[in-house]
Amino acid sequence: MPEGQRKSKQPTIREVAAHAGVSPMTVSRTLSGGVYVRPDVQERVLRAVRELGYHRNEIARSLRPGQSSGLIGVAITNLGNPYYGNFALGVEEVAARHGRRIILGNTGEDPARERQLVSDFIGRQVEGLVLVPSGRSGEHLSSDELGGVPLVLASRSLDGLDADTVLLDDVGGAAGGTRALLDAGHTRIAFLGNARSVFTGERRFEGFVRALAERGLVPDDALVERDQQDVAAAETATRRLLDLDHPPTAIFSANNRNSIGVLHEVARRLRSGAALEAMPALASFDAFELAGLMPVPVTIVDHDPRELGREAARLLLARLGPEPSVEPSRRVEMPVRVVTAT
Amino acid sequence: MPEGQRKSKQPTIREVAAHAGVSPMTVSRTLSGGVYVRPDVQERVLRAVRELGYHRNEIARSLRPGQSSGLIGVAITNLGNPYYGNFALGVEEVAARHGRRIILGNTGEDPARERQLVSDFIGRQVEGLVLVPSGRSGEHLSSDELGGVPLVLASRSLDGLDADTVLLDDVGGAAGGTRALLDAGHTRIAFLGNARSVFTGERRFEGFVRALAERGLVPDDALVERDQQDVAAAETATRRLLDLDHPPTAIFSANNRNSIGVLHEVARRLRSGAALEAMPALASFDAFELAGLMPVPVTIVDHDPRELGREAARLLLARLGPEPSVEPSRRVEMPVRVVTAT
Repeated sequence: MPEGQRKSKQPTIREVAAHAGVSPMTVSRTLSGGVYVRPDVQERVLRAVRELGYHRNEIARSLRPGQSSGLIGVAITNLGNPYYGNFALGVEEVAARHGRRIILGNTGEDPARERQLVSDFIGRQVEGLVLVPSGRSGEHLSSDELGGVPLVLASRSLDGLDADTVLLDDVGGAAGGTRALLDAGHTRIAFLGNARSVFTGERRFEGFVRALAERGLVPDDALVERDQQDVAAAETATRRLLDLDHPPTAIFSANNRNSIGVLHEVARRLRSGAALEAMPALASFDAFELAGLMPVPVTIVDHDPRELGREAARLLLARLGPEPSVEPSRRVEMPVRVVTAT
Repeated sequence: MPEGQRKSKQPTIREVAAHAGVSPMTVSRTLSGGVYVRPDVQERVLRAVRELGYHRNEIARSLRPGQSSGLIGVAITNLGNPYYGNFALGVEEVAARHGRRIILGNTGEDPARERQLVSDFIGRQVEGLVLVPSGRSGEHLSSDELGGVPLVLASRSLDGLDADTVLLDDVGGAAGGTRALLDAGHTRIAFLGNARSVFTGERRFEGFVRALAERGLVPDDALVERDQQDVAAAETATRRLLDLDHPPTAIFSANNRNSIGVLHEVARRLRSGAALEAMPALASFDAFELAGLMPVPVTIVDHDPRELGREAARLLLARLGPEPSVEPSRRVEMPVRVVTAT
């Protein structure tokens, strides 16, 4: 074929396959993520793709009857938080392995923004949605509203909405972290958490209460601070707690924003000459870097946000394809691991 | 209109506008991100959208002649790193304000994966690409290869590829961090960095050398460790440095992975009874949480990855739209800030 002709029209997948000395199926598999294709063969196919200037027209493909857009809409609350960054990475990883791409939107915990994003995703004919919901209402997420597009909720569920859901074991993890503090001899244990309206905040408080109850204890209202969404607010709340006439000897913190706030306040006091023995022990739901270097013992309730993302994608993919699952909605709780301070 | 009829066909944008008591333009603006629309009006429009079950068909829109897909392809090296999570957040934020969505892919620093992603994005008819390149070669990124789709490189540039690029002031930042150590009286300063093939690693080493040269110093080869991609490798490299007969009294670390490794090794030595005075001071390119709580003084070369993402999106958007810029490629260096340990 003369050079001029090749440039003038898009090469076909058959031409690419012939150029690479493989089957069209192998070209297709390589371009869909390379599952079941040897690395050296992938490299050969990609070289042919480059040399011929081949691009699959995904949109054209999506508009053939019975074909799909190959896009999965992912709406999360804060991409800047490494927890959600890793979550999105897990979704992307599994989606890519099945030839899908993710469209990503950030809701900033704003339910109006979430509604807008979901509407936009549906308009772009996504095959499915993965959502970390911002509010407690799921009225805009019913199957009717979504035109039958499959939905997976992650990290948080919504009352009255029947959808596949993947959660952390929030209750068990919070109970385990609190138990570690009880086992170390603490009985005056404070609770720091985020806004009550956030689903995980409530579940983690439930776990905290449960562990106390096992030892015949109830939470002391003066030691419960539940409205800190950022590090600065957590620092202030810790100051309030440690200034009490009977301060707590330990703190259970329901997320890493609150844990970092506790540690900032502890460091401030140590710099001002406070005795290390007067500082509280800490149990933190969520790991954070350098936890092992802190002046006070830190117990971590650890988990794997990337695996949470992978599981969300797996639940979604089971609902797609030529033979989608029609099983009732599933709710998966991912395990967490309590790493006790030594 | 009877209920049955309304369900049977997609409502038009005019019907939504009439239902909300606004103009079709206001509906369109609200659905494109809400710029120039009052929050209460947005809320009214979104209620009408929900009540009528309206979804814009983005794909249909994209296929009208002269219209576009409204998608921007974003390929980054590691979404799990908060630096890139915040970068993607900045791109998404500015893109959404202009009615675009991002398709996101993770390359894992793998050039073959990057080529695949770019080819896939082009096949999906993205309007533009934002890329943190993995390799040093840009042959798959020429304007011809991309079919004229505009490209912005972020964090790293590529030799011989003429494209809009947004970088950090790597050289100036590394020189500034090193100067802070020199000003504190250190002359035996080690350098820890990532693989030489990574563009930023070379630029930051250049800044380090420059600051030493200003004081008539040259780097001591025994104190330069340039191949650590993760925390564990950085820990090992630090161990090697501190075990030298003449160990460094300070370390300049070219990224936060290396900084965390240094601090783990320092903490390990302190736990084993090493004297605090024998531990090195640290200057770190990249901030990290809890830096202020470390046992040794830590100088931070700070920057704003979210703003880097915003700037990348701005550069790209200037090349899109009805009157795209045809100016020569731009190269923007974002400022960094040296925060000296006190």
